[in-house]
Amino acid sequence: MNKHVYFFGADKTEGNKEMKDLLGGKGANLAEMASLGIPVPPGFTITTETCAEFYEEGEKLSDAAIKEIDENLEKLEESMDMRFGDATNPLLLSVRSGAAVSMPGMMDTVLNLGLNDESIKGLIEKSGNERFAWDSYRRLVQMFGDVVMGVEHHYFEQILDTAKETKGVKFDTELSIEDLKEIVVKYKELIKEKVGKEFPTDAKEQLIMATEAVFGSWHNNRAKTYRRLNDIKGLKGTAVNAQVMVFGNMGETSGTGVFFTRDPATGENLFYGEYLMNAQGEDVVAGIRTPKPISTLKEILPEQYDELVEIYKKVENHYKDMQDMEFTIQEAKLYILQTRAGKRTAAAAVRCAVEMVDEGLIDEKTAVLRVDPNQLDQLLHKQLDPIAKKEHESLGKGLPASPGGAVGKIAFDNDTAVEMKKAGDTVVLVRNDTSPEDLIGMDAAVGILTAKGGMTSHAAVVARGMGKCCVSGLGEAKINEKAGTLELGGITFKEGDYITLDGTSGDVYEGKIPTTDPELSGDFGKLMIMADKFRKLGVRTNADTPKDSEQAIKFGAEGIGLCRTEHMFFEGERIKAVREMILSPDLDGRKKALAKIKPFQKDDFAALFKVMNGKPITIRLLDPPLHEFLPREEKDIIEIAGELNTTPEALKQKMSELHEVNPMLGHRGCRLGVTYPEITEMQAEAIFEAARDVAEAGTEVCPEVMVPLIGNVEELKNQKEIILAVAKKVLEGTDIDYLIGTMIEVPRAALTADLIAEEAEFFSFGTNDLTQMTLGFSRDDVGKFVPEYVEKGLLEKDPFQVLDQTGVGQLVKMAVEKGRSTKENLKIGICGEHGGEPSSVEFCHRIGLNYVSCSPFRVPIAKLAAAQAALKD
Amino acid sequence: MNKHVYFFGADKTEGNKEMKDLLGGKGANLAEMASLGIPVPPGFTITTETCAEFYEEGEKLSDAAIKEIDENLEKLEESMDMRFGDATNPLLLSVRSGAAVSMPGMMDTVLNLGLNDESIKGLIEKSGNERFAWDSYRRLVQMFGDVVMGVEHHYFEQILDTAKETKGVKFDTELSIEDLKEIVVKYKELIKEKVGKEFPTDAKEQLIMATEAVFGSWHNNRAKTYRRLNDIKGLKGTAVNAQVMVFGNMGETSGTGVFFTRDPATGENLFYGEYLMNAQGEDVVAGIRTPKPISTLKEILPEQYDELVEIYKKVENHYKDMQDMEFTIQEAKLYILQTRAGKRTAAAAVRCAVEMVDEGLIDEKTAVLRVDPNQLDQLLHKQLDPIAKKEHESLGKGLPASPGGAVGKIAFDNDTAVEMKKAGDTVVLVRNDTSPEDLIGMDAAVGILTAKGGMTSHAAVVARGMGKCCVSGLGEAKINEKAGTLELGGITFKEGDYITLDGTSGDVYEGKIPTTDPELSGDFGKLMIMADKFRKLGVRTNADTPKDSEQAIKFGAEGIGLCRTEHMFFEGERIKAVREMILSPDLDGRKKALAKIKPFQKDDFAALFKVMNGKPITIRLLDPPLHEFLPREEKDIIEIAGELNTTPEALKQKMSELHEVNPMLGHRGCRLGVTYPEITEMQAEAIFEAARDVAEAGTEVCPEVMVPLIGNVEELKNQKEIILAVAKKVLEGTDIDYLIGTMIEVPRAALTADLIAEEAEFFSFGTNDLTQMTLGFSRDDVGKFVPEYVEKGLLEKDPFQVLDQTGVGQLVKMAVEKGRSTKENLKIGICGEHGGEPSSVEFCHRIGLNYVSCSPFRVPIAKLAAAQAALKD
Repeated sequence: MNKHVYFFGADKTEGNKEMKDLLGGKGANLAEMASLGIPVPPGFTITTETCAEFYEEGEKLSDAAIKEIDENLEKLEESMDMRFGDATNPLLLSVRSGAAVSMPGMMDTVLNLGLNDESIKGLIEKSGNERFAWDSYRRLVQMFGDVVMGVEHHYFEQILDTAKETKGVKFDTELSIEDLKEIVVKYKELIKEKVGKEFPTDAKEQLIMATEAVFGSWHNNRAKTYRRLNDIKGLKGTAVNAQVMVFGNMGETSGTGVFFTRDPATGENLFYGEYLMNAQGEDVVAGIRTPKPISTLKEILPEQYDELVEIYKKVENHYKDMQDMEFTIQEAKLYILQTRAGKRTAAAAVRCAVEMVDEGLIDEKTAVLRVDPNQLDQLLHKQLDPIAKKEHESLGKGLPASPGGAVGKIAFDNDTAVEMKKAGDTVVLVRNDTSPEDLIGMDAAVGILTAKGGMTSHAAVVARGMGKCCVSGLGEAKINEKAGTLELGGITFKEGDYITLDGTSGDVYEGKIPTTDPELSGDFGKLMIMADKFRKLGVRTNADTPKDSEQAIKFGAEGIGLCRTEHMFFEGERIKAVREMILSPDLDGRKKALAKIKPFQKDDFAALFKVMNGKPITIRLLDPPLHEFLPREEKDIIEIAGELNTTPEALKQKMSELHEVNPMLGHRGCRLGVTYPEITEMQAEAIFEAARDVAEAGTEVCPEVMVPLIGNVEELKNQKEIILAVAKKVLEGTDIDYLIGTMIEVPRAALTADLIAEEAEFFSFGTNDLTQMTLGFSRDDVGKFVPEYVEKGLLEKDPFQVLDQTGVGQLVKMAVEKGRSTKENLKIGICGEHGGEPSSVEFCHRIGLNYVSCSPFRVPIAKLAAAQAALKD
Repeated sequence: MNKHVYFFGADKTEGNKEMKDLLGGKGANLAEMASLGIPVPPGFTITTETCAEFYEEGEKLSDAAIKEIDENLEKLEESMDMRFGDATNPLLLSVRSGAAVSMPGMMDTVLNLGLNDESIKGLIEKSGNERFAWDSYRRLVQMFGDVVMGVEHHYFEQILDTAKETKGVKFDTELSIEDLKEIVVKYKELIKEKVGKEFPTDAKEQLIMATEAVFGSWHNNRAKTYRRLNDIKGLKGTAVNAQVMVFGNMGETSGTGVFFTRDPATGENLFYGEYLMNAQGEDVVAGIRTPKPISTLKEILPEQYDELVEIYKKVENHYKDMQDMEFTIQEAKLYILQTRAGKRTAAAAVRCAVEMVDEGLIDEKTAVLRVDPNQLDQLLHKQLDPIAKKEHESLGKGLPASPGGAVGKIAFDNDTAVEMKKAGDTVVLVRNDTSPEDLIGMDAAVGILTAKGGMTSHAAVVARGMGKCCVSGLGEAKINEKAGTLELGGITFKEGDYITLDGTSGDVYEGKIPTTDPELSGDFGKLMIMADKFRKLGVRTNADTPKDSEQAIKFGAEGIGLCRTEHMFFEGERIKAVREMILSPDLDGRKKALAKIKPFQKDDFAALFKVMNGKPITIRLLDPPLHEFLPREEKDIIEIAGELNTTPEALKQKMSELHEVNPMLGHRGCRLGVTYPEITEMQAEAIFEAARDVAEAGTEVCPEVMVPLIGNVEELKNQKEIILAVAKKVLEGTDIDYLIGTMIEVPRAALTADLIAEEAEFFSFGTNDLTQMTLGFSRDDVGKFVPEYVEKGLLEKDPFQVLDQTGVGQLVKMAVEKGRSTKENLKIGICGEHGGEPSSVEFCHRIGLNYVSCSPFRVPIAKLAAAQAALKD
């Protein structure tokens, strides 16, 4: 067995920040600061290897470990010139856990170890503050009883509450010394009663028990589950940090505070923090007294202030990152208790990263790795004002389906939404769920709220594409679309009532909450330029309209990875022709209807080709089952039957014929193209004719025709033949290049990718559907069990948000390998929702995809994630 | 290049029956017979290698090949002492294709090659029958024009029809010599007009052209598609057989006939056949004259009859299989034209195989390989009388969902079906589709007809399990269940009308057709005993009731591989309690309802344990989504709301909450057990308590608890914990062994089988659902495109009937390998419908499964298929 214990403090420090595996993150940082000459309260770290040994020994510390602890304790007593558990000059210790990776479930802190009925006398004498000493003792017994001896927290709270009630006081601080003494006695009795053992009065025993409790918590269920779910392997255990206690509440030259080395909200390079004089750390947090800005410390304790400034600069310079630090001043002596990378807003993260490069503190690679791609979302959307938000209570929490804040008047149907928008109102569309019919209403709204559907429901996917706020799957909302009411949180909303959605958190509020505009500052642009230098993955966008495409290009999209042609089928005259086609009893009728649709499609494609100006556009052929285009409401059925010169009964009969038990697995995708080749033909004509016309007018075009839902290479052959025949006819005499490829979204397509690649010029993974089929999860229905799965730890994350690399990813990887085994340079991308999710983007990079495609508002996120993936490689 | 041409005939024969790759099946058999001394008309075979060479040479015969053809032609002329194309003693030839594997699309036969305006004179003279000679010539020109020169068949028919009309006659045979001459002239003009070339009068040219036409047909689209779909690879091409023509219509000592070496209907060992004197082969088939039984030939040509008997015995003895042979007697000289294995009924196949073993002709292995497992189905069900059936016209053809014949009165709902049965009628249940609610009606019926649903729809699966006839997916049937009408083939049936179903073919007939009873003769039993000696796969059954289980044991099932517990949920009081559970708003309510269901479940399991008497029973926990148990019809909703003390509105509200867009991928299987652990607990209690009680009463029990729809090992852990806790509680103090395992039916389960195997004691492949998810095919909806896929050649077979080995099979194989990589001796079976399909059974054997499980009536089929798979290994 190696050395069990590492000392830190002034010149005797044995560890450093590279030793996280052995000393844990906290221990390594304390050692590092001590080595830098930062005034850290001295102490020692018991290694993670000792934790492993603890389990080998049957959950107890070895004699060798105890011996080393004793030795280090002596060293500490020497260096402080105090004695642990001493009645005159008592040394007090804190004990904290600290693994290489921070995780929940580990044992909490125990403070004031070393206090007992004897040593408290010394503390009273030394501090000259009897109340402080007894309160410290009370805290020790409570914390120790709870976290080391396992007496539930609420029993202690009960005793404390009873005491306060009896005294008729509100705050702990109002209790007298006698009260505190009495509470300590009652706490001890409580422990005896619950555990059958006395609270240990021996200081050494306290230390050993606390240490063993920390080690014991390594294998508790919560920690184990967390490690398993997060795939944290290979850790030996947790370390234990025992450190000398310092007190900020020892009079007017004592105090405590926290600070950041830069402004964590804006990223500005300034000294940012707050403190309280004559106070303990808890008091800063408890909110009883209002802390003062750090700058005012200069007037009170100028020397210590200057020392702090010197320290913060030194530490930031050393760690080369913005730090979040804690300090305590005990009787005019400054101690730094902790340093760690500071949490920051997206804006601050971007500004810090970019400015630190300018300052020469970090290089561009580090800057790119410094910003969490997921955070960028905050910068790209209108947000609810965080301060104003605090004053409102959430009525309910749905899924955060599309980020940003939305405030508007409620509309329950598309027509009303459109009218209200025309009248100058901002509108929030409230529906049980949405279908492609609702595109007009969604377009008119600033936000969408649905009671049903998950993160990849129609509403969610479309809203993200539009960059609109959406809260989906708010099951507790009772929406009656016909009556025009929404019941939520005890309130009944009617049409025209104001409502506020927070698509970033999923919360819904009554009335109006102010919003803040997105801020794409210059730093954001600089960070994107850096990211572009490193990333290897291309980033495209999923867009169906010139408007979305323009937005995506602004965000840096390099092409369209998924244009869903059916989204063009819904507006005005088009939907009528589409319905006419569906209802035609024969080929001639269908062809006539298709001829009406074609000019619209052609115009749409031409507009996209112009906007994209030579960038590639992957156009997916018709994908959804035909019944999605038929009306659902009785009144619409009657109206449409009239328009189409048929009877409502005949229309209903057709609808019943088209009805499917599992539409997801039904007659859709290329299956439509196989049974109705005339649809494929029309779409190919529209694509190639548009490409030809735009090219003739002088704009470069790059069409990529994508056949959806292939499961069998024969399907692709069948569809390719039709497309090639059209291309030959339409593009004869031009030099337009085009590709024909396929979605890989059916598991069988991945399994037979080698065969499919013989016919395909590119693959694009439709990981939404691939996830549905590989996991057997209907994304419209998962709301019934996936939340419970996540809660019970059966699933770590919603697989529709974060790619399931173990399952679905295995198929994706297999398809890449098989596909390239028959076509070496096969171009491969991903166009599912996962294309904009950072961990999934990293996966795509790792398995060698050529590009990812995501909704316009996630393009910057994908770019940053791609750059990070390349840098981590 | 090797030898191009192989001669056969008497002592000069160069080939034999082992040379199928080179000479094709037909050529090899002709050579074999010639070698045996059988009087085969001599000829020669042009090899398959020559076919390959033909393509290498740019679709023409090489000089070397033509030279060899010439040499062999000379040899033939010598041996026959006749001259090809000669005006006085003309040799005539037939040309036929023949590859190693027979396939459609290849060029048809051309007869009478060598006839022209000169040689016909010789034929007239030699035969003394001018009409015969001209008719032969006419046939040559027609066949040659059609198959060699590509003039469509119907043009020739037109000329012939016009001639008959002009003459006012009905049959070809009524045309005069002059008529025939005129037709020959017109045929030649037709060829000239359509092809621009003359009909070749040179005999040699005819032969070369015919040979090239055969080779040319090797690469036609139909043949290529057939080879691709059937995965026929590595064939060099087709061979060509040129053979001397013999004629059975040269007078009273000539004749022609066909015979089998055993009775092809019963398998009885006797000389079975028929013949016509003074006739050509076509006349036997055409049905103008009635052929006579072969035994009567003994009186007319006793010498030739005896020769035939000698030959048939010799040939059967040589080939060791029942032969189907053709003969011609030309002027008292007997020729054998062909021999091949005879097509036979299932009964004949079984009897032949078993008796040939008894006779010492073949060994048991050969006998087992001799019977097509698919055919056995014929023996296991009541069938429509094949002769009576011919007199009826099919009104429509649905899917042959469950074999056998059913005759009964129509009922459109369950109650009526039950009442009619009580009244002593046999009932056919006619529904648009069925759901578990209809089990009672199906049980009361002898056959089921549905308009919707495929081969694995609820109706189909349940009917097969019950061994009842079922025709499903008869789309053209218009069924109005409320009005009680079925419209089909122009007839409107009402309740109580008689209808006949043929579940073996999918045909539906009006009225009553007699049926024949299944015949499980002693030979069948003997064959099964032989099969059991060789097979390595276990064979279990899918059964939920003691009745089905008993049936399956009679058929030789070795256990239950799938007991669907939800099938026990539907009867009487149970369904009420099940609905009460579903509608309970809280856990307490659910537990109360579950307590009512438990005694039923326990009794059901106890009954199964008793019947199975120690054989293993794999019990699957609740699988379908809960909404399947709720009523669908308005009147039932009202009634059930009353029973459950709730309102129809509340019931509908609950139903709408439970509604799923894609129930197949929804809240079902283990997902129910995870969100409602009390259901799993109740089922585990029922299983283990029943096992304990039955064991205590002295019957051995072997329960295997199967958790359905696992996609993630965490789900299995979760459910296993519940089951283990119950087992511990209930089985304490007993020595009952049990297993806990899982279905592999979600693609992700196959992909992560290594992880799942760590927790599972067995796997059972649910290939129905695995096929649905891997292919993205909803089995309830595939009727909209799968038939068209099969028709267009995009799919060879319905993947719900025959396992898709390329796609789904890949996942199955992967799961077996991964599963056994972490648990070496993992027991693995299959319980999807494929478990009773021979080619899928062979696949299961090959990849090392332990057992297959199928519906009771397919157990013998699976056993035979398993034995064959083991023998082929």
